[in-house]
Amino acid sequence: MFTQEPRQIVSRRDRPAKPPLSRDAIVTTALDLLIQDGLAALSLRKVAAALDTGPASLYVYVANLAELHALMLDRALGAVALPVARAGGWRERLTAVLTSYLRVLYDGPGLAQLALATIPIGPHALRLIETLLDLLLEGGVDPAVAAWAVDLLTLHVAAIAAEQDVRRAQGDTFGPMTRAIAAADAADYPHIHALREELLSGGAARFGWVVDLLINGVLHAPALPRATTDTAARPSVDPTEQTEQDETDR
Amino acid sequence: MFTQEPRQIVSRRDRPAKPPLSRDAIVTTALDLLIQDGLAALSLRKVAAALDTGPASLYVYVANLAELHALMLDRALGAVALPVARAGGWRERLTAVLTSYLRVLYDGPGLAQLALATIPIGPHALRLIETLLDLLLEGGVDPAVAAWAVDLLTLHVAAIAAEQDVRRAQGDTFGPMTRAIAAADAADYPHIHALREELLSGGAARFGWVVDLLINGVLHAPALPRATTDTAARPSVDPTEQTEQDETDR
Repeated sequence: MFTQEPRQIVSRRDRPAKPPLSRDAIVTTALDLLIQDGLAALSLRKVAAALDTGPASLYVYVANLAELHALMLDRALGAVALPVARAGGWRERLTAVLTSYLRVLYDGPGLAQLALATIPIGPHALRLIETLLDLLLEGGVDPAVAAWAVDLLTLHVAAIAAEQDVRRAQGDTFGPMTRAIAAADAADYPHIHALREELLSGGAARFGWVVDLLINGVLHAPALPRATTDTAARPSVDPTEQTEQDETDR
Repeated sequence: MFTQEPRQIVSRRDRPAKPPLSRDAIVTTALDLLIQDGLAALSLRKVAAALDTGPASLYVYVANLAELHALMLDRALGAVALPVARAGGWRERLTAVLTSYLRVLYDGPGLAQLALATIPIGPHALRLIETLLDLLLEGGVDPAVAAWAVDLLTLHVAAIAAEQDVRRAQGDTFGPMTRAIAAADAADYPHIHALREELLSGGAARFGWVVDLLINGVLHAPALPRATTDTAARPSVDPTEQTEQDETDR
């Protein structure tokens, strides 16, 4: 799934005793191990062992485990389907990208956890961020709001994928929750008792609803906090920008 | 931090050789181990060892690791500050509850991961859900929307806490991201280049903005998907409900 090039059949005679080390080979092996054993079990030592080498050899290609995580996530993000044309509404295309992001994270066990734990850097992550910014700007979202909204949207989707991933790993964990909510006393917990069906309903249909709600939230985004313009990362303070942002607080 | 009762000084002579086992003692020990070693390292075997007993003795009190996780999370959620009176606006009180939830998850390393991985059951989790429902209903949110919104709000806050928790554990991980965004080429990534300061700005000030945006989203929630009324969890289909929900799609 994460192999970048199609496998070619090569004569055993021509094949070297060990496959040559490369960043690509390290990331491919690490992703295989992630799917097999999960994120917590992943170490540079294990990746090295799977490549029939020692950890010291890996450090030529990868600085540390955090960098390997970032490279793994970036490789996986290459599978997110991005819109090829400006056909259809920006909102539908944005929803499609986020849905594809959910599927990619969910299809690779451990990837969702990786997405929550890692700051993605690399061409695929940058392409995803660029696409989301483009869609939000097309939808008329204030640029500064769009910048923060990208983080909010991707974080929420990653959290849903992580939650689903854990539930898949543990088997059906809804039983205890169904029982807890069903048993919630009407006197002590009147709202939970009245809404006991709604609290558990929806299933997979919730995702589209949640994405819609988040996009509505972005379209009704509050003014950016003043502190933003005070951060060291921002060299100049332009008061007119704040006024523009205030207008987004409709 | 998670000990339920204040410690009393007891003469060594009066103290039994082993502290008596109880659900409370098991949960307290497990939370201590979580803070010390993290979620991945937690096992019933280790909890038993810390309590100077064998795993078999624990099964009298806790069915399995998943149940222990749920009990641990519920105990921790007892520290979330809930409003004591209907003073001030519902929105301010809702924000305060979510901020307290963030702090509780963030202050106990590993708790945020636990919140993402565990379906909370128990009196503190139920009390938190009941309070959030109460605040949303006070704000005029449609009851069925409120039921799903509670999940959305708590998931998002837990994801923020988990992300911060990982960043704290790994030290400053913003360096690579700052460099990646600063290096993003204006030709390949025009939006990222133009918004390179906004993408990284805000810091802690983002949380209040995100909560505000999410509440705005809930107030502008889309109609619940029709599938909801088709789930097995829902015994009766009331078409008038769908009409009411459509009105929330302002």
